[in-house]
Amino acid sequence: MNLQEFFTQFIPQIEAEMRACLSSSDPALNPYYGMLNYHLGWVDERFAPAPTSHSSGKRIRPMLCVLVCRAAQGDPGQALSAAAGIELLHNFSLIHDDIEDNSPTRRGRPAVWKLWGVPQAINCGDGMFTLAHLAMDRLRQRGVSCDRIMDVRETFDHACLALTHGQYLDISFESRERVSLDEYLRMISGKTAALIGASAAIGATLAGSAAVAQYETFGRELGLAFQIQDDVLGIWGDEALTGKSAESDVATRKKSWPAVYALERSEKLRALYAAPEVDVPAVLAEMDALGVRAFAERAAGEHHERARLALRDSGAAGDAGQALFELAESLLRRAA
Amino acid sequence: MNLQEFFTQFIPQIEAEMRACLSSSDPALNPYYGMLNYHLGWVDERFAPAPTSHSSGKRIRPMLCVLVCRAAQGDPGQALSAAAGIELLHNFSLIHDDIEDNSPTRRGRPAVWKLWGVPQAINCGDGMFTLAHLAMDRLRQRGVSCDRIMDVRETFDHACLALTHGQYLDISFESRERVSLDEYLRMISGKTAALIGASAAIGATLAGSAAVAQYETFGRELGLAFQIQDDVLGIWGDEALTGKSAESDVATRKKSWPAVYALERSEKLRALYAAPEVDVPAVLAEMDALGVRAFAERAAGEHHERARLALRDSGAAGDAGQALFELAESLLRRAA
Repeated sequence: MNLQEFFTQFIPQIEAEMRACLSSSDPALNPYYGMLNYHLGWVDERFAPAPTSHSSGKRIRPMLCVLVCRAAQGDPGQALSAAAGIELLHNFSLIHDDIEDNSPTRRGRPAVWKLWGVPQAINCGDGMFTLAHLAMDRLRQRGVSCDRIMDVRETFDHACLALTHGQYLDISFESRERVSLDEYLRMISGKTAALIGASAAIGATLAGSAAVAQYETFGRELGLAFQIQDDVLGIWGDEALTGKSAESDVATRKKSWPAVYALERSEKLRALYAAPEVDVPAVLAEMDALGVRAFAERAAGEHHERARLALRDSGAAGDAGQALFELAESLLRRAA
Repeated sequence: MNLQEFFTQFIPQIEAEMRACLSSSDPALNPYYGMLNYHLGWVDERFAPAPTSHSSGKRIRPMLCVLVCRAAQGDPGQALSAAAGIELLHNFSLIHDDIEDNSPTRRGRPAVWKLWGVPQAINCGDGMFTLAHLAMDRLRQRGVSCDRIMDVRETFDHACLALTHGQYLDISFESRERVSLDEYLRMISGKTAALIGASAAIGATLAGSAAVAQYETFGRELGLAFQIQDDVLGIWGDEALTGKSAESDVATRKKSWPAVYALERSEKLRALYAAPEVDVPAVLAEMDALGVRAFAERAAGEHHERARLALRDSGAAGDAGQALFELAESLLRRAA
């Protein structure tokens, strides 16, 4: 099987497991679960089934978990509950992110807080967070030993904690004039890379692999490459593909990789960012003059290369191993 | 030992375990952990150590966990990590509650969101939630078997879920004109009683008790009694002791037990609550005429009696068993 065929096989199974985690038999709670289902892209804002959609996200993290489990000679069926938990955790963080960033839309639709208000949205995120943990409890029904589940949960809980660390740094960066590239990397290590690293590590743990650390490095470095690439697309991406205005990251003064890199190097840019309103064309011209895009892409490429080497060291085998190399490649080359 | 002596012995141990859960060696994260420490009452808003204080809450839930463990012939030392996790979970819910209810103060000090803004406060709650789970992971270091830890975690995760269910109902009640007493009871079953029930159940599980269900009922019924009593204090309590204006629950139209009970029975009261501004003295007079306070206290008393019977059925033994009866009694008779 190639990567596309693995997606075709596993995505419906992951979705089914996620849906099982969100089932409720209490009619009084239907609107509550409706909001959670809405965020996951399964229903519209009136809770009617939504057409199979791009509103549900790419499901990269759970795929990584399942593929690593298989590449490490484990039973990917056993990894499904963990994969569902990982995707639910990712979605919890998005619900809260949208409130924290004051972002009115998510995947082309109104964010949960925009439709149902901040109080319900905070609580929906908390519910999604809890359901992520309950998904991990389901590993027991799949015959995974309690010792191994505890290993998985520790990895998972530490990734959650790193996520809140990264989020703390990200929010605090907004009110700071200067952020170093080192600080930026620590922020995305927590906010993005930790959970992607944990996704791979958990797949390997469930397979009983001796190469958990290598798989974790693979996921983490892939996450760093992914985020820097995301930052590049946030400035130079094709709006028709990314769904957001190409220069919005500049207009909002987002401390993304290109901005942090350029602000460290250019007095002119610091002045432009300090102005009451950002002159977007002038910023882009200065970034061009500094060659920022090429440096950012090189940085992403370096993390990608480290990911590739760690994956090779892990001994990932068979068609699932091959699919992991493909997945890494496709994430780096993506346009959206 | 009596209840007071148990508090004197165990509270410092529970606090020490909570502090161990919140340790961080990364200076960049000091302000983040500072905010969490502030919420727990350990430091002031400049992160300087706070005087031993009433700002840290009553720590009833963790005491319940430890006392039940001992009353069920378990090792209360093994329960300390779970007790810490339970208290951290309770505090996560308070951080988010304060945002959701737009409450500017908590235990006589500014709430986290009021000092550091909503985005950081949401993330602090998420961090506290995660630390609660990591506290549960620490049971392993205390020599608890992984099977038993998984039982504990399932109980814990289901209590978290019930908490978000209750919170969903509570928020949705605000925009509804009529709420039945049944609906109110379901709301507090989730929002308050589930975690108190879980605190007792987890103590019993860690002791390997055969009476986990009875202890759970004890905690849950105690939680219901506690909440109804809290609602009574919210209207008729002594402001000097409760720290909040005695009639604030009336002025804000809070759907507490007395209000729900009275609104079901009085057309006059429904009109008073529907007015643009609530006429507090008129509401209190109508509640007096209906004898609402006595009915509420009787309802609390009934749940308290059920709690007492369940505790008797559990076979809770020794001085810890006696202390549990005392604890239940003191919660019902409290004035704040």
